[in-house]
Amino acid sequence: MSSQYGKKLKISIFGQSHSPAIGVSIDGLPAGAAVDVDELRTFLRRRAPGQSEISTARAEDDAPEILSGLMNGATCGAPLAAIIRNRDAISGDYREIRDIPRPSHTDYAAHVKYGGHQDTAGGGHFSGRLTAPLCVAGGICLQILRGHGIEICAHILRIGGAWDDAFDPVCVSSADFEAIRSNSPPVIRREASDAMRLRILDAKEKGDSVGGVVECAAIGVPAGLGDPMFDGIENRVAGILFGIPAVKGVEFGSGFAGAEHMGSENNDGFYMEGDRVRTRTNHSGGILGGITNGMPVIFRAAFKPTPSIGLEQESVSLSRKENAIIKTKGRHDPCVVPRVAPCVEAAAAIALYDAYLDQ
Amino acid sequence: MSSQYGKKLKISIFGQSHSPAIGVSIDGLPAGAAVDVDELRTFLRRRAPGQSEISTARAEDDAPEILSGLMNGATCGAPLAAIIRNRDAISGDYREIRDIPRPSHTDYAAHVKYGGHQDTAGGGHFSGRLTAPLCVAGGICLQILRGHGIEICAHILRIGGAWDDAFDPVCVSSADFEAIRSNSPPVIRREASDAMRLRILDAKEKGDSVGGVVECAAIGVPAGLGDPMFDGIENRVAGILFGIPAVKGVEFGSGFAGAEHMGSENNDGFYMEGDRVRTRTNHSGGILGGITNGMPVIFRAAFKPTPSIGLEQESVSLSRKENAIIKTKGRHDPCVVPRVAPCVEAAAAIALYDAYLDQ
Amino acid sequence: MSSQYGKKLKISIFGQSHSPAIGVSIDGLPAGAAVDVDELRTFLRRRAPGQSEISTARAEDDAPEILSGLMNGATCGAPLAAIIRNRDAISGDYREIRDIPRPSHTDYAAHVKYGGHQDTAGGGHFSGRLTAPLCVAGGICLQILRGHGIEICAHILRIGGAWDDAFDPVCVSSADFEAIRSNSPPVIRREASDAMRLRILDAKEKGDSVGGVVECAAIGVPAGLGDPMFDGIENRVAGILFGIPAVKGVEFGSGFAGAEHMGSENNDGFYMEGDRVRTRTNHSGGILGGITNGMPVIFRAAFKPTPSIGLEQESVSLSRKENAIIKTKGRHDPCVVPRVAPCVEAAAAIALYDAYLDQ
Amino acid sequence: MSSQYGKKLKISIFGQSHSPAIGVSIDGLPAGAAVDVDELRTFLRRRAPGQSEISTARAEDDAPEILSGLMNGATCGAPLAAIIRNRDAISGDYREIRDIPRPSHTDYAAHVKYGGHQDTAGGGHFSGRLTAPLCVAGGICLQILRGHGIEICAHILRIGGAWDDAFDPVCVSSADFEAIRSNSPPVIRREASDAMRLRILDAKEKGDSVGGVVECAAIGVPAGLGDPMFDGIENRVAGILFGIPAVKGVEFGSGFAGAEHMGSENNDGFYMEGDRVRTRTNHSGGILGGITNGMPVIFRAAFKPTPSIGLEQESVSLSRKENAIIKTKGRHDPCVVPRVAPCVEAAAAIALYDAYLDQ
Repeated sequence: MSSQYGKKLKISIFGQSHSPAIGVSIDGLPAGAAVDVDELRTFLRRRAPGQSEISTARAEDDAPEILSGLMNGATCGAPLAAIIRNRDAISGDYREIRDIPRPSHTDYAAHVKYGGHQDTAGGGHFSGRLTAPLCVAGGICLQILRGHGIEICAHILRIGGAWDDAFDPVCVSSADFEAIRSNSPPVIRREASDAMRLRILDAKEKGDSVGGVVECAAIGVPAGLGDPMFDGIENRVAGILFGIPAVKGVEFGSGFAGAEHMGSENNDGFYMEGDRVRTRTNHSGGILGGITNGMPVIFRAAFKPTPSIGLEQESVSLSRKENAIIKTKGRHDPCVVPRVAPCVEAAAAIALYDAYLDQ
Repeated sequence: MSSQYGKKLKISIFGQSHSPAIGVSIDGLPAGAAVDVDELRTFLRRRAPGQSEISTARAEDDAPEILSGLMNGATCGAPLAAIIRNRDAISGDYREIRDIPRPSHTDYAAHVKYGGHQDTAGGGHFSGRLTAPLCVAGGICLQILRGHGIEICAHILRIGGAWDDAFDPVCVSSADFEAIRSNSPPVIRREASDAMRLRILDAKEKGDSVGGVVECAAIGVPAGLGDPMFDGIENRVAGILFGIPAVKGVEFGSGFAGAEHMGSENNDGFYMEGDRVRTRTNHSGGILGGITNGMPVIFRAAFKPTPSIGLEQESVSLSRKENAIIKTKGRHDPCVVPRVAPCVEAAAAIALYDAYLDQ
Repeated sequence: MSSQYGKKLKISIFGQSHSPAIGVSIDGLPAGAAVDVDELRTFLRRRAPGQSEISTARAEDDAPEILSGLMNGATCGAPLAAIIRNRDAISGDYREIRDIPRPSHTDYAAHVKYGGHQDTAGGGHFSGRLTAPLCVAGGICLQILRGHGIEICAHILRIGGAWDDAFDPVCVSSADFEAIRSNSPPVIRREASDAMRLRILDAKEKGDSVGGVVECAAIGVPAGLGDPMFDGIENRVAGILFGIPAVKGVEFGSGFAGAEHMGSENNDGFYMEGDRVRTRTNHSGGILGGITNGMPVIFRAAFKPTPSIGLEQESVSLSRKENAIIKTKGRHDPCVVPRVAPCVEAAAAIALYDAYLDQ
Repeated sequence: MSSQYGKKLKISIFGQSHSPAIGVSIDGLPAGAAVDVDELRTFLRRRAPGQSEISTARAEDDAPEILSGLMNGATCGAPLAAIIRNRDAISGDYREIRDIPRPSHTDYAAHVKYGGHQDTAGGGHFSGRLTAPLCVAGGICLQILRGHGIEICAHILRIGGAWDDAFDPVCVSSADFEAIRSNSPPVIRREASDAMRLRILDAKEKGDSVGGVVECAAIGVPAGLGDPMFDGIENRVAGILFGIPAVKGVEFGSGFAGAEHMGSENNDGFYMEGDRVRTRTNHSGGILGGITNGMPVIFRAAFKPTPSIGLEQESVSLSRKENAIIKTKGRHDPCVVPRVAPCVEAAAAIALYDAYLDQ
């Protein structure tokens, strides 16, 4: 495994779905930064399962225990480590998949890589549950970044065929972020929530699952962050986002749609707004040559439908080397997307704060 | 800057468009690997400018000089360094942009980051020309990977509205790769070349530019490569691809399209083919949980239209802090996409070989 | 802070002397390696305080809790994290040093670096207590290395003026290691223990402290480990050893003494022993050009006397910017050296196993 | 190989003794730093061979060619690459050592590691010649550090039994540095040069070689540099010093001698000098817990005698697996120490500037 990320802010994530605990060590936090643990807990609750009919029934109180690095509500310069105990784990559900890998889950690839020694219970280290320590690290970064005037918010752009509006990439504001967070799942256009919920319930009824796209914006980001060629903001953000299970695509600004535009349409003309340089449009997603230009940073991450579905699927028996049929048991989300918005925010916060510290 | 990439195979790219030379140091190549310099030169010629009416008129003979690391046609374990001299550079063309940044080019962001000290001539270190040393490193990796039975090929999936067919993600073969390389620009369906050429010429006539998408496949990749959570194949490939100028999106397998599928549609069922485990479909793009599963690795990269266009555009004067109009001079590609296919192959080869060595 | 070490085996150490817990995350352990937790506990007991009259009275049962990465006594490929709770901490002892830094302790330098936000209780993250998680990681590496035929042992070469014999750098064997471990403190010549104990008790009586040198040997190390120029074995071993508090010097083979030799004396002539290439002498300490040569790896680490002493010393008041007198309270070792032998073994094991995996 | 060093300032060294060129890419230099290429050349001349009767007869004009990263005498933020052509190389001298490794040279260890594919001519990538690109990088860092008030100077503390005085670790000054540089080899006490020269000539006459110790001081270093546990100043400096061929020991402050002191002798008491906190003594070598304390940084590096001597030595034939006798041909320094002082300064400058940028 290689569950470490960052150049100046170096996180090291550990734990498996059913191990005694999951957690994270965060090395490189500056000393003296205020961290509000209650606020962190509130942030973590946004990704926690067991909240509603549209997510997994597994109930975890993902309250992190801070083991080090924090004194009287502020960082002390030493690595900040936090763990979350795994309490509600039913290991028995996962016995079969040691031999019969679930389609499009990590089972088979991990079996080859780890020679059968990997922890398969609940997906082991590949479980979506490992986004909890990511959110611990990211939640702390979000708090510190806000102190530097940087805010980050993600909303669900689509679930299957149900679409939300996109961010206005030029004008997106703090007020937009608040409005989004008042919706569940988080969307810009409230009615989109209802349509999305229907898609998920439909999938749930069928024992199926559905994918989606999350869009994220960071505002207040100063111009000049990012280190080309290979530690530019796009490299950094993509490098952490693809660590979130189920992410299969990442695009910035006009992204894939930009391929159909002419330069004259896609280019973002500059103008002065008082003393500030701004762009009329923001097809660049706030990033030029890997470096922020002071406009909102905008990106989207595509999530594949949860591979664990309740239907019969083709698979193989690894021991008998023959075809087999699998029907996944266990408690699974019909759609992870409603819960991943905070994960995407957390990942973006870690990547941006690392770039910020790496100036 | 941070123009180094890799964990085991560590490349360090240097040079500016108009500096005495550009080059790369490749650290971590195993000793005893055969490298054919003529073949490398042929590979580099595929990305070289000045080949046809649809690319920039700048003529560079991108023949690399190998300075170290190679003895009698094989690597000797020491870092392999190569440089390419910059010969055909007309610096005068770029004076204006020090004050009036070109829209959607790196000029403004670099100005903020490097305090005006950056080399703007020809785009400096941000120039597409820096993909030449990337291709030197990648071309060497391609040769070595082929010795391990791994082949990589990219084709142009679209330029503006002109589309090629997509790879068959299950059956794509060495023969398909050969066929693609016999077309210019490289496409699967020969007629697509013509349509693409028309789009580019149309943009050229208008003084405009056009974007596109490149699709890439790697075959023969063994199962088990990639190191989750943050050094998985997707993280690694995206981490290098976003280092290629103009890339704004990266997706694997069904990518963004997967968001509209149900799990039952998107999951890739397993079956035995003799002793080998294969999947019926390949929406995963050969990667599960960041680890290869033995199927072809498939990904796409979106390129924005070249920001340098011949039309008047809105900009600002950084010195006078007022709005300004810019009309880019210099020799520019109306579309970089025809030349980037080898760059994408090179980047993929570096990322995959690094993951291969990092097992 | 930057408490991460390793290229392939990446450890991340966290915790402060008086925080809820200290611990380590170990990323990159191969799957399927047996780890005996009881044996690990026995190893950790060798560095634990409170064992005898010659070490600190602080009693800690340094039994680690494994949180992840281990299943049925073997690694599962996921990061292995372990924590040790801090139970016997009396914070009050350390209030004064926030303003009046202890001479030759980290207090002042940390105050400047962390702006007064650092945790000073018990030395915070700089405490020798942080060698416990180092020993957790190292103890695991020692077990795995033994499975590869590699054994590591450290003994105390000197404490103040009391000297032990040095290793025979050519013939040192497993049996020597066993004999050393049967002595307390660990020495080659049993009588040396007594002389050393006297030095320590003498220092203790005077409220003073005393330094020493630890010598370490690794046998069974195959030729070919280490990656020059900057990840050679010497760079790697020194890079981790200087992370142990109080280490001020590191030398390999004949080290500083080699400076007074002629080449004809210092060179290690080769000869064949059956099929194996060996050297007659081992002034190189088993390392040539940063690469192991198959002979025992031999190095020494110098430990300064514990800076915390019971005598009055000159210091300053940081708040009042005036000279001051300090007399350190708290429970301290008059000499850390007896307890650091396992820490040096642990550090060497981590460095060598990392180099082993990094081939 | 792993010839890259640094966290923020990342150097990548390439080349072999007899390859077309040697060089370095320096990534991470801030933009706008003045670099005087003539001064750099002067600095490089201090390590160049062929200067006198006491060093190798090989004549190299080590004038570096800057390929990138520099514009109008200042860094531009892009990687700075420089190469030095290898002109005076006689490859024939090194044929024999492919089969019969030279005692205490890297030949045998490299043979095992690189499977016989390594470049043996002139020592290949292991040649002392590779300290030339190290000095290019370090020479640039020295210039920039001086702009920040930091100066670094090394002198030869001993060659065999001929000793120079040591630095006054509390009061060492810029004037001392100038005085040292006026001596050749660089020493504090002029007469020491003569005694050293005699030792070297004596060794030369006998076809033998001799080792030595270099002591280095950095003054003007602000308190607060260094990142414990594993990127402290000691770890960083040792991590680069052991990359210089022949270094077998590194110690800071009182180092190994500190082991015989009591804490009351070794501790450095603080006092106020105006507004500044200083220490009465400097046994810590300016570093506490890995962090600088504002006092001069003092360290020593032990160099083994050059392994290449003109006398007959025991070796083996790797092909015939039998004992053999070797008498090294080629032109070699009887003592590298006179030439390594600038290398040690360069290494220290790189390590300190990297730590400086990494704050």
